[in-house]
Amino acid sequence: MKCIKWKGNHIEIIDQTKLPGLLEWIECNDVKTLGEAIKRLSVRGAPALGIAAGMGMALASILSEAKCLDDLKKELSSVRDYIAGTRPTAVNLFWALDRMMEIVNEHEGDIESLRNKLEAEALKIDRENKEMCMSVGDHGAELVKEGWNILTHCNAGFLATGDYGTAIGVIRSAHKQKKNIHVYVDETRPLLQGSRLTAWELKQDKIPYTLIADNMAGYLMKQGKIDMVVVGADRITAEGDVANKIGTYSLAVLANYHGIPFYPAAPFSTIDMSIKSGNDIVIEERNHKELVYFQGIQSAPLDSDVYNPAFDVTPHNLVTAIITEKGVLYPPFDKALEEMMGENQGL
Amino acid sequence: MKCIKWKGNHIEIIDQTKLPGLLEWIECNDVKTLGEAIKRLSVRGAPALGIAAGMGMALASILSEAKCLDDLKKELSSVRDYIAGTRPTAVNLFWALDRMMEIVNEHEGDIESLRNKLEAEALKIDRENKEMCMSVGDHGAELVKEGWNILTHCNAGFLATGDYGTAIGVIRSAHKQKKNIHVYVDETRPLLQGSRLTAWELKQDKIPYTLIADNMAGYLMKQGKIDMVVVGADRITAEGDVANKIGTYSLAVLANYHGIPFYPAAPFSTIDMSIKSGNDIVIEERNHKELVYFQGIQSAPLDSDVYNPAFDVTPHNLVTAIITEKGVLYPPFDKALEEMMGENQGL
Repeated sequence: MKCIKWKGNHIEIIDQTKLPGLLEWIECNDVKTLGEAIKRLSVRGAPALGIAAGMGMALASILSEAKCLDDLKKELSSVRDYIAGTRPTAVNLFWALDRMMEIVNEHEGDIESLRNKLEAEALKIDRENKEMCMSVGDHGAELVKEGWNILTHCNAGFLATGDYGTAIGVIRSAHKQKKNIHVYVDETRPLLQGSRLTAWELKQDKIPYTLIADNMAGYLMKQGKIDMVVVGADRITAEGDVANKIGTYSLAVLANYHGIPFYPAAPFSTIDMSIKSGNDIVIEERNHKELVYFQGIQSAPLDSDVYNPAFDVTPHNLVTAIITEKGVLYPPFDKALEEMMGENQGL
Repeated sequence: MKCIKWKGNHIEIIDQTKLPGLLEWIECNDVKTLGEAIKRLSVRGAPALGIAAGMGMALASILSEAKCLDDLKKELSSVRDYIAGTRPTAVNLFWALDRMMEIVNEHEGDIESLRNKLEAEALKIDRENKEMCMSVGDHGAELVKEGWNILTHCNAGFLATGDYGTAIGVIRSAHKQKKNIHVYVDETRPLLQGSRLTAWELKQDKIPYTLIADNMAGYLMKQGKIDMVVVGADRITAEGDVANKIGTYSLAVLANYHGIPFYPAAPFSTIDMSIKSGNDIVIEERNHKELVYFQGIQSAPLDSDVYNPAFDVTPHNLVTAIITEKGVLYPPFDKALEEMMGENQGL
C-alpha cells in the first residue's frame, strides 16, 4: 500500500488528517493543491515528503503552458521555491527538489523530453525509496523469531515513507515470512501517531496488533509479553545515538532493564556522520496546546506550563543494533559505521 | 481545599467530571443526588467515597420523616444498601457504611440523638481522613530537599482523598514548608487524571508545575530534571509490592535506572498484610473505548484490539521507601511492617 501515487497527469495522496476515521484520497490536479496538503500535514514523514516534492515538480512540468524551454525552466524554478516553502524544515523536501532541479538546469533539448525526464526521476525517487524500505524490512526481519511480540512507537510505516515503511517495514517483512508475529502499538502521545496511523496501517495489512497507552509498555515487558522493540529514527549520530519521537528513550531504558533487544530501523541516509554525540542534537519543542487540548477538547488547565519536546535521544549504549538497508549494524557503532562507509567508498 | 463538604442539612461536592474546564459544586439535598454523583464519578477516590458514604447516611437520618426509632433504623438500612450499590467495588464505601450502621444498630434512645451521633461520626471520618493525609504529607516532606523537582502520576490529591491528598499531600507539605519545589505532572493516560485533576489542584494552591505526556518522564530524568518520584497506592502487600495506576511501574524502573528515589505515599490501611506478593493482586482491565476514543472523538480504528489494565504492580525492590501517616517505611518492608504492626498492637 502507498500513501502517494503518480497518476500520469495528477497525484493522489491519502489525507492522513482524516485517519483513522476515514480513508480519503486527495486528487492533486495542480501544484497548489499538493502544497496545501503538505502544509496541512495530509502527507508527512521525511521520505514521503521527498516523493511528494519530486512528483510535484514532474506535475508542474506537465501542466506548464510554457512555449519555450527557458520559460519552462523559469516556471519550474519558482515551483521549486513554492514547494520548498510548504515545510521549510523538512530536509528531505529540499533533497528531492535539488535532485529535480539538477535535471532541469542540465537539460538541453525540447520541452517534452524534459517533462519525460522529470517524470522518470520522480518515479525513480519513489522506487528507490520503496526498495530502501523493503531492504530495511528484510534485514530487520532476520532478527525476528517465530511467534514474537514486537513493540513499536509512533509511525515509521508507509504513511511516513510513501511505501512499506522502515520500523513497520521490519514488521511487514516478518509478517510476509509468516513468522506469526503480533505487534503492540504505543499510542504515542501527544499526537497519537501510533493509534491514529500505525494501528490503521497494520489493520490494512491484517497484521495482528494490540493498542496500548505509552505508560503500559513497561508493565507488558515485566509480564514477558514483549520480545523486541523496533522504532524509526529521525537522526543517528556517528556514535550510534538515536534521535526519534519522544518516548523512544523511555522504551530503550525499559527494554534494557528487561533484557529485551531494542532496534532503530532507518535509511542509511539518517546517519549524520557530522555529529558525534546525541547531546549535540537540538530538540524541537512543540506547542503547549498539544497537551492542554486533545482534538479541540480541553484536557488540562489552559494556562498550564507544559514541556513538549518532539524528540528525545537514546544513547548508543541502549541500542542493541541499527537496522539499515545496507545491513544490520552492531556496536561499537562508530567502528561499524567507519567500516561500512569505507566499503561504500570502495565501490 | 476540600472536594466534599457537610453543610448541616445538605452535602456539597465538586463535580470532577467538569474539571479542569469548570469548577462546579453539586448541592446534594437528598441521598439520590449524592448516589447519582457517585455513579457518575463526580466524586471518586477511595477516601473521598468513604466520606461521601458517611455524610450520605447522616443526611438520610436528618431528612427522614420517620416517627419512631425502628422506622428510622429500617429506612437507614435501605439507604445503606442504596449507597453500597452505587460503586459496588469500592471497599472504602463499605467500610464507612459499616461504621455508620454500627452506630445505627447499637443506638437506643430518641431519633434526634441518633441523628446527632451520625452527623458526628460522618464529620469524624472526614476529620480523621484529613489528619491522616496531613500526617502522610508531613512525613513525606521530610524526604524533600530545597528546590527539588518532584514527578507525580495520576491524582492522589484532595480530589481523591476529600482533603489534602497523599502523594500530593507530600507536595503540599513541602510547599507549605517553603522548600521551593516544582512538580512535573504526568498526564496519565488513558483517563488523564494527571492533566485534568492534579494539574488543576496544584494550580488552585499556586504550586508551580509543568505538565508532560507520560512518555516524556524518562527523558526528563536523563536530563537530571527529576529529583524524586512520589505516587499514591491502591494496595501494598506485606512484602512492599505496590499496586497503583498503570504507568507507575514504568516510572519506578526509569527512576531506578537514573538513581532517583521512588516513593509511594498512602494511608497505612492500604497495606494488605493478607497478600505477600504483588503477583497475587488481580489487575482490573478496563473498557477498550478508553483508548480508541478520547472525550468522544475517535483516535484509533474502532475495532482495534486493546490492552487497558487499570493498575500495575511495582515490586518492592524498586521502592525506595513507603510513606504512611505512621511514618516512613524502609526496606526490607516485610520486617519494617512486622515491627510497626507489633508496635501498634502494643499500644
